[in-house]
Amino acid sequence: MKLQQIIRQHQLGLLFQQGMFGLEKESQRIDLNGKIVKTPHPKCFGSRRYHPYIQTDFAESQLELITPPNAKLEDSYRWLSAIHEVVWRSLPDDESLFSLSMPAGLPDESEIQEARLGPTEIAYREHLSRTYGKMKQMVSGIHYNFQLSPDFIKAVLPLQSEHASLRELQNAIYMKLATNFLRYQWILVYLLAASPTVEPAYFGGNAPLATGQFVRSLRSSRYGYVNDPKVKVNHDSLADYVQSLEQLVADGLLIAEKEYYSNVRLRGAKKVRTLLEQGVQYAEFRLFDLNPFSPYGITLDDAKFVHLFLLLMLWLDETAGQAEVDLGRERLYQVALENPLEPTAYQAEGEQILRELLAMCEALQIGEAERALVEQKLAQFSRPNLTIAGRLVEILKETDYQTFGTQLAQRYKAQAFERFYALSAFDNMELSTQALLFDLIQQGISVELLDENDQFLALKLGDHLEYVKNGNMTSHDQYISPLIMENKVVTKKVLAKAGFNVPKSVEFTDLDTAVAHYPLFEGKAIVIKPKSTNFGLGITIFQQGVTNRDDFRQAVEIAFREDKEVMVEDYLVGTEYRFFVLGDQTLAVLLRVPANVVGDGVKTVRELVEQKNSDPLRGDGSRSPLKKIALGEIELLQLKEQGFTPDSVPAAGQTVQLRANSNISTGGDSIDMTDQMHDNYKQLAVGIAHAMGAKVCGVDMIIPDLTQPARADLSSWGVIEANFNPMMMMHIFPYQGKSRRLTKNVIEMLFPELADLNKG
Amino acid sequence: MKLQQIIRQHQLGLLFQQGMFGLEKESQRIDLNGKIVKTPHPKCFGSRRYHPYIQTDFAESQLELITPPNAKLEDSYRWLSAIHEVVWRSLPDDESLFSLSMPAGLPDESEIQEARLGPTEIAYREHLSRTYGKMKQMVSGIHYNFQLSPDFIKAVLPLQSEHASLRELQNAIYMKLATNFLRYQWILVYLLAASPTVEPAYFGGNAPLATGQFVRSLRSSRYGYVNDPKVKVNHDSLADYVQSLEQLVADGLLIAEKEYYSNVRLRGAKKVRTLLEQGVQYAEFRLFDLNPFSPYGITLDDAKFVHLFLLLMLWLDETAGQAEVDLGRERLYQVALENPLEPTAYQAEGEQILRELLAMCEALQIGEAERALVEQKLAQFSRPNLTIAGRLVEILKETDYQTFGTQLAQRYKAQAFERFYALSAFDNMELSTQALLFDLIQQGISVELLDENDQFLALKLGDHLEYVKNGNMTSHDQYISPLIMENKVVTKKVLAKAGFNVPKSVEFTDLDTAVAHYPLFEGKAIVIKPKSTNFGLGITIFQQGVTNRDDFRQAVEIAFREDKEVMVEDYLVGTEYRFFVLGDQTLAVLLRVPANVVGDGVKTVRELVEQKNSDPLRGDGSRSPLKKIALGEIELLQLKEQGFTPDSVPAAGQTVQLRANSNISTGGDSIDMTDQMHDNYKQLAVGIAHAMGAKVCGVDMIIPDLTQPARADLSSWGVIEANFNPMMMMHIFPYQGKSRRLTKNVIEMLFPELADLNKG
Repeated sequence: MKLQQIIRQHQLGLLFQQGMFGLEKESQRIDLNGKIVKTPHPKCFGSRRYHPYIQTDFAESQLELITPPNAKLEDSYRWLSAIHEVVWRSLPDDESLFSLSMPAGLPDESEIQEARLGPTEIAYREHLSRTYGKMKQMVSGIHYNFQLSPDFIKAVLPLQSEHASLRELQNAIYMKLATNFLRYQWILVYLLAASPTVEPAYFGGNAPLATGQFVRSLRSSRYGYVNDPKVKVNHDSLADYVQSLEQLVADGLLIAEKEYYSNVRLRGAKKVRTLLEQGVQYAEFRLFDLNPFSPYGITLDDAKFVHLFLLLMLWLDETAGQAEVDLGRERLYQVALENPLEPTAYQAEGEQILRELLAMCEALQIGEAERALVEQKLAQFSRPNLTIAGRLVEILKETDYQTFGTQLAQRYKAQAFERFYALSAFDNMELSTQALLFDLIQQGISVELLDENDQFLALKLGDHLEYVKNGNMTSHDQYISPLIMENKVVTKKVLAKAGFNVPKSVEFTDLDTAVAHYPLFEGKAIVIKPKSTNFGLGITIFQQGVTNRDDFRQAVEIAFREDKEVMVEDYLVGTEYRFFVLGDQTLAVLLRVPANVVGDGVKTVRELVEQKNSDPLRGDGSRSPLKKIALGEIELLQLKEQGFTPDSVPAAGQTVQLRANSNISTGGDSIDMTDQMHDNYKQLAVGIAHAMGAKVCGVDMIIPDLTQPARADLSSWGVIEANFNPMMMMHIFPYQGKSRRLTKNVIEMLFPELADLNKG
Repeated sequence: MKLQQIIRQHQLGLLFQQGMFGLEKESQRIDLNGKIVKTPHPKCFGSRRYHPYIQTDFAESQLELITPPNAKLEDSYRWLSAIHEVVWRSLPDDESLFSLSMPAGLPDESEIQEARLGPTEIAYREHLSRTYGKMKQMVSGIHYNFQLSPDFIKAVLPLQSEHASLRELQNAIYMKLATNFLRYQWILVYLLAASPTVEPAYFGGNAPLATGQFVRSLRSSRYGYVNDPKVKVNHDSLADYVQSLEQLVADGLLIAEKEYYSNVRLRGAKKVRTLLEQGVQYAEFRLFDLNPFSPYGITLDDAKFVHLFLLLMLWLDETAGQAEVDLGRERLYQVALENPLEPTAYQAEGEQILRELLAMCEALQIGEAERALVEQKLAQFSRPNLTIAGRLVEILKETDYQTFGTQLAQRYKAQAFERFYALSAFDNMELSTQALLFDLIQQGISVELLDENDQFLALKLGDHLEYVKNGNMTSHDQYISPLIMENKVVTKKVLAKAGFNVPKSVEFTDLDTAVAHYPLFEGKAIVIKPKSTNFGLGITIFQQGVTNRDDFRQAVEIAFREDKEVMVEDYLVGTEYRFFVLGDQTLAVLLRVPANVVGDGVKTVRELVEQKNSDPLRGDGSRSPLKKIALGEIELLQLKEQGFTPDSVPAAGQTVQLRANSNISTGGDSIDMTDQMHDNYKQLAVGIAHAMGAKVCGVDMIIPDLTQPARADLSSWGVIEANFNPMMMMHIFPYQGKSRRLTKNVIEMLFPELADLNKG
């Protein structure tokens, strides 16, 4: 099949490059000394019966991190990063992930615990232990899943005559991909391998390597996890492949088809025979050692290079049969055991194939950056010390691999805590959505990012589908509730109707009418505000009571600049608290304090601000839970009112205000008060949310004394606003007080069945 | 109690003027000849057991229209107007509402049917029939409910010393209002009365009036509906009032307290004794004859005048006791029987009281317009022919009152059909909300207008509360559904996931990437559009397939002007239909046709447009179901493309396009296709709505042949958009085809119990 020619003639290059990508990465949990742990799979990862992201491979200690398939390799890589961050932050303090494929600190074989899955899985693992020994099962690597665009195969169908049906063509294309890969896989081992050594225990005291001998890849060598030499599968065609594999199982040489450990698996059905009827859906490439120089075991560049290499396997005019597959395996075994610092015996073939890859890139107009990647790899054939194995061996001459792998493991884990409130790969999304994603990945609920700019997720657990926008906008709330909350007048009418304490207000649509009503307000403490703006704009407060008609007129005028309706409202005396209500519970209560610093008698205001701003929680406010305090015009004015400049040195313990308003977005502090707040008010907040039909609601209440039980009148409490889609980050990562992981509550609300599932 | 002095000294004038107002208006249903009908209360008005707006008074033919209480008299008047419009449009074609208080065309007494209510109500009415005769019960009038602001009473409390408690003060104030009103009520009869005559049957052949004799108010005279002279209630204090009234019932002179027919009733409790404990809540003034010169029985100006008059009753320094009440009744009976064209015997007193009213207006800085009203009324004391009775009598000299009242009844009814799609009093709101309000009023669901600008209503039926915004945004939809529909990308992903035919699309965030993907689209019919704009802006369609990279680039560029994300989507061939889905049903299917006229071989395009625009459904489009066709730049261009100018004369039957787009907002036609559409597509639309969790949804589908069953592929049908808050007016009042009263379905959805309630 001359795919290259068809692609060139019919300009199918772009379609040829489309596909789906998925990555699976195994690694061993280790303790602080680099020993494989004997602790069970962490409970916080939910159940392995359905977890799409975090599984165990052979052993209980061996985590398998699985990305969902994505049309962009970059996205799969983001998922790989995100799942890693979740795992690192979820592991016990004294555990991390070993950075190398070959295990170190192996326990006694009898102490290796097979993964505690269902009975079938355990039985299979016990068979493997008996057949291959447990040690080989402890080796880790990366599997790379790749699917061509089905549209590409459809487009090719009418342009060739060898295969009559789409399914036949599809199977032939994947078979070509598989066999050519098996023919040239040694090239990837030369370039990407990273398992030069292993501790003697691995071989049970019968080590084939000389002391100090390093190879390119023990894992890909005959000392890796390989079938018995009697296990021979025929790759001449998919039909031959299916038949020979089935025969091996029938003859008892394999316990199941999946016991055949090829570096390529054709995927799309549980039984290989089904592939003949339904067609191969994608291929899994299992060759890759963990690259210790990447926190995730593979670099994005290498993943891109692998994609190009796979495309080349189809682009080549030749199609390998069983003879070429055998030749390929021979070369693989040979190259795997070569000295990583020496050139390979097949340098010429390797360089020639990469030159063909370059030519393909040119023909397909593939970008500069990708071509540069290929050129780098090409150059490594004459400079073996630049290959991953080469670089690794230089290090292992100085440090034993257990120490090296453990140090890296700890460094990578520590890096994952630098911005502990974020999920780095999804930092384009809001922090609350990042926190939700974290919890979803941790608990094993499938997520599809429907629209990242819009913070729109589809969640799935079994057949149960839910959608979430902005972290807590869901099917559990009624359409009308946010509409009620969006409109302050309506909110207050609804709450007043339901019997809650609401400051009374009068609305006006023109200035003159408002001013004519001045006598109604004279002497009263009032707030004058635009009906619907939300950013504190246009609000005037007469805390001591309005006593002058002109002042009143001016305040109304200011409010009318922001909206065509203005409210004059009772002003409530007390402290404002934010209640986060979900369902029948107030889950969090927060006090927001205006930006401030506390003096120490030594530092200047400027220095105190800098010190406070160095808190990792403080950033630009859009991608950090708190915002750095500015020293702008408004802050300087505020300082001046207190008799300070930025260079003043406040007395020890003296609080200096930098803002009048308490918004987090202007550097305010968030202080969790959930446990301090009298339960009465928490119940009131729930009632307020319910009155608007809301499940998730942020209720702002003014309370003069949070320790006293609520009384009936406005002097005891009053509700001033209700917010749909209330912010969660300020509760999850408050400046002071206890963290409230509200995203977990959102998940519990959406998937109440989760509790039962995890019990079972 | 010197209220006037307190108000003046403490500037309580504004608060004094605040209050709540409610109007109740009775009138007889009559046939085309002006005879009182014998038909039952129309079924469409739901059940009288709970109807807050439309009730029957004594007789089955006697409608009582009741406004909810409002803080602004204008609002009560709007309700009065709206309820009238609903009634007029709901009555059988041959029925209308008699415009005068005194009934005409009375049936034989035996044929007067008491209102068919519950057994208690019927028993009470039968007692009334026995005691007073049925004829007097047929008289109609207006009751005016007035409540002072409770804040006013609270404000007065500390400023006086006569009454120790709020309740006592409140009762004293309402008692003063009542007795002073009874003292001076004759003034209102002089000015506003309108029952100068009645047909002889009313008196059972024993007429007290001479032939051709007219009086001011038969209804307020001793020939009206009055208690036996033995029924004497003491008005010296509320305690006396309660005791004397209870005694009358105990003595069997009244069957119940409500049988006491005073022109003032103190309200707030079922039993008068309760008023002593709980306080009078408001007062009901029952004096008012129907003013035939207003469609609603009273003009807004007169209602305002009555308010001022009531305030004056409190403003006056004097407080009437029983002696003054008796004097007032004497004068009332005398004035009621005066010749309407002659000055009253008490002209001096009347003028003096109105001058005091003017003085009050000045003291309270009441507006010019209101003062002018009072001055007009004052002038009518010397010009009795300008009073309502005076004007009416001039007419009745020429026309008998049955004919006059019937002609007016028919004229007023006809006026209510002029803009039959609107509810005039609420024309500031959207048409769909007007239609919903119409149905709610008709069916007797209580409505509170929470925010008119925001089309926000609170509905109540018994204890069942619902909120509605924009006609169909309710608690029945999930919060997430509109959010899904708001985002085209998410909509399509969700629908595709659920297995519906959706045109495939690719999204781009920058021009270059989009253009680089041109080969994927070459030759295909595609639509290029901004991700989220909704007004057709920035959309380019390559109906015949895109064949040129530059054209493609330009279209993408245009789309990027409207949004930061652009979609390139399969273009579907066929006709677009709008499916209106509610719950499990497609209730309406609409075809929208671009603005057009059809030639007749005689008229010019301009004339054809004018003719089409004369349809009452066509207006400015914001407050009319359809929009007038313009002849602007775009239309002229469209004409030119077809070889026309506005002065061309198209052939008979020839359709001339005036627009390319089919929006109703640019003069398009709406054509109901519900019955023509194959059921398959209606079911699909329901499924599509359900996939997004939507209860109310407008689904836009492209269908090449609406008569053929749906097939699986995109060539048979495809969904291109889903709309939350879909327009309803175009279905309710289509240009062609059957009207679909969707607002009724919304009500059924919200109040499923209504069907059962109305059965009972």
